Amino acid sequence: MFRLDATDPDSKARAGTLTTAHTEIETPVFMPVGTQGSVKTLHPRELKDELGAKIILGNTYHLWLRPGTDIIKKMGGLHGFADWPNALLTDSGGFQVWSLAKLRKISEKGVTFQSHLDGSKLELTPETSMEIQSILGSDIAMLFDECPPYPCERVYAEESTALTSRWAARCKQWVEENRASTGPQQHFGIVQGSCYPDLRERSAKDLVDLDFDGYAIGGVSVGEPEKEMFAAIDNAEPFLPKEKPRYAMGLGTPTQILEMIARGVDMFDCVHPTRSARHGLAFTADGPIHIKNLKYADDPRPLTPDCHPHLAGFSRAYLRHLFKAGEILALRLLSFHNLDFYLRLTRDARKAIAAGEYTAFREDFTARYQAKAK
Amino acid sequence: MFRLDATDPDSKARAGTLTTAHTEIETPVFMPVGTQGSVKTLHPRELKDELGAKIILGNTYHLWLRPGTDIIKKMGGLHGFADWPNALLTDSGGFQVWSLAKLRKISEKGVTFQSHLDGSKLELTPETSMEIQSILGSDIAMLFDECPPYPCERVYAEESTALTSRWAARCKQWVEENRASTGPQQHFGIVQGSCYPDLRERSAKDLVDLDFDGYAIGGVSVGEPEKEMFAAIDNAEPFLPKEKPRYAMGLGTPTQILEMIARGVDMFDCVHPTRSARHGLAFTADGPIHIKNLKYADDPRPLTPDCHPHLAGFSRAYLRHLFKAGEILALRLLSFHNLDFYLRLTRDARKAIAAGEYTAFREDFTARYQAKAK
Ligand SMILES: [Zn+2]
Ligand SMILES: [Zn+2]
Repeated sequence: MFRLDATDPDSKARAGTLTTAHTEIETPVFMPVGTQGSVKTLHPRELKDELGAKIILGNTYHLWLRPGTDIIKKMGGLHGFADWPNALLTDSGGFQVWSLAKLRKISEKGVTFQSHLDGSKLELTPETSMEIQSILGSDIAMLFDECPPYPCERVYAEESTALTSRWAARCKQWVEENRASTGPQQHFGIVQGSCYPDLRERSAKDLVDLDFDGYAIGGVSVGEPEKEMFAAIDNAEPFLPKEKPRYAMGLGTPTQILEMIARGVDMFDCVHPTRSARHGLAFTADGPIHIKNLKYADDPRPLTPDCHPHLAGFSRAYLRHLFKAGEILALRLLSFHNLDFYLRLTRDARKAIAAGEYTAFREDFTARYQAKAK
Repeated sequence: MFRLDATDPDSKARAGTLTTAHTEIETPVFMPVGTQGSVKTLHPRELKDELGAKIILGNTYHLWLRPGTDIIKKMGGLHGFADWPNALLTDSGGFQVWSLAKLRKISEKGVTFQSHLDGSKLELTPETSMEIQSILGSDIAMLFDECPPYPCERVYAEESTALTSRWAARCKQWVEENRASTGPQQHFGIVQGSCYPDLRERSAKDLVDLDFDGYAIGGVSVGEPEKEMFAAIDNAEPFLPKEKPRYAMGLGTPTQILEMIARGVDMFDCVHPTRSARHGLAFTADGPIHIKNLKYADDPRPLTPDCHPHLAGFSRAYLRHLFKAGEILALRLLSFHNLDFYLRLTRDARKAIAAGEYTAFREDFTARYQAKAK
């Protein structure tokens, strides 16, 4: 269930409330990524109580391979297994098959491939992806799609987009035949179509005809220029129903997220904040800083003037020291900080939309964020 | 300041209260080790509020080499640098010079050696060790000693023990001449003497003559058999004043700690709980378990029936999965659990001493802890 709470007069930005089996989620929202059933370095209680995360991601491909659905089922689904009380979104596994698995073969039926962990031969189909996600018990399951590479020739993109639509219909059918086991799980279609506007339109229309609980823009963040990324949103958005949530998969930088909110997107996920944290990159309103840099060696200031209480007691000098000394606490603290930055960013965006000031908010944020880089 | 609160009728076990510049510490007490200014994987707030740690260790050698005393001084000492509000104990650096540094040369003046980090030539003397520790600003500073290897020939042990006594006198003199900068810092002497009873006695008497705030038993946990370890305590303890705290350095297993409490020791530190946690070893009342073991793959129980709330929501299956998947959260959770186990152990020992039931407590704990291993 999705409710529109406010719309921005000067852009397509929206504030909404998405209700799932486990919680209510105010949008725009950033969803931390918990690939293997753990948002890297963080305790679920930190995510929920200190960071205020309402929804996190789990990766179907990773969890299916290890520890496997039997164990997760026995532990009460992914919620019980990972002791996560708020909402969960699981991807379909298709993107990881494309990016991690070996000897991948696509057919009408699905995809066969070799596990990147032990080389075992596996098959993922629309039906098995939906079944795995129903066992994981996520609040939101993503449809099984084919994500074409970038760049992608027209003829391949056409066939791939059509295949994604046929797979979407099979996912829908599986869900309808298995309502007893999927319960209140919601299902989001994924708009493909590469960089071809008419294919994006066709894909969006095909999925909307099948009527899902929300719609994602897929096939972005696969190496394309930023312009193409925004075009993919612009080419699909007009054909998506206003009363359903929209989700841009795997994106992006703070300024890109604000751009996409202005283009009508409600939901985001990205490994960028946690992955870059592990490399010593910390987000600030004045742009990212590299905490390992020598100039922070005796800097007594916290990472940012309005740092979360979780980090406010630590100087940049201490954080740099922890990195230099190889201390795990360094990875924890920067991961926490960067997720706080992203979660605050989308919460602040929501406030600005509700106040009818989104465009000014976005322009001010972007100008300051990029000023030092110039 | 140390106050004896209770003594056990059947052993030398004592319950006391040690007051330092930052806090009151109930003994017996376990002190988590924060080698480089961080108790590995843990947030200081977790240590203080969730685990109830009153005092942690910092390593003079490591912190002196990196980040160095200039930076720590600028950040308000080690308390300010690491955002740790309770008590800190710093070692003298001598033990690390012995175990980590290269090209070590001992003279009457002190020790010259090469840094294990960058090979630079450094010198540590009784005076510089005390000065560094006064800059670190620890509540308790350890005297600079020589820790002889095990086994150790009589003639070497004699000379080494005498050197430690002469260095102790120089430490004492430095402290008296620098009271303005050391403030309320307390200073503990370190009893050496290897496995020679008369040298342990001599060392204890030499140090007690100089009158320190507390006394440590050093030169233990250096590869000697357990019997020798206990003998080192037994040979020194009778010559230590009852009204001062005693500290056994770098020890030990849970059952060893209870043995040493029965022998009159009040304070303990050990990297064992955190180091073994990072290898997947978790302490339980029925002995340690290896969480990576296949038999825990689908075990829905928490690590222990009385697990800390911090971990009570996680199954053994989930913890094993986190280890297998290489997730940092695994290291955090087991480190937390093992420190909780050690901190509870000494708190429970204190309660048993106060109740006059220490011997029964120790025997019951040890019987259950070792039962499965038999
Ligand atoms: Zn990213
Ligand atoms: Zn140990």
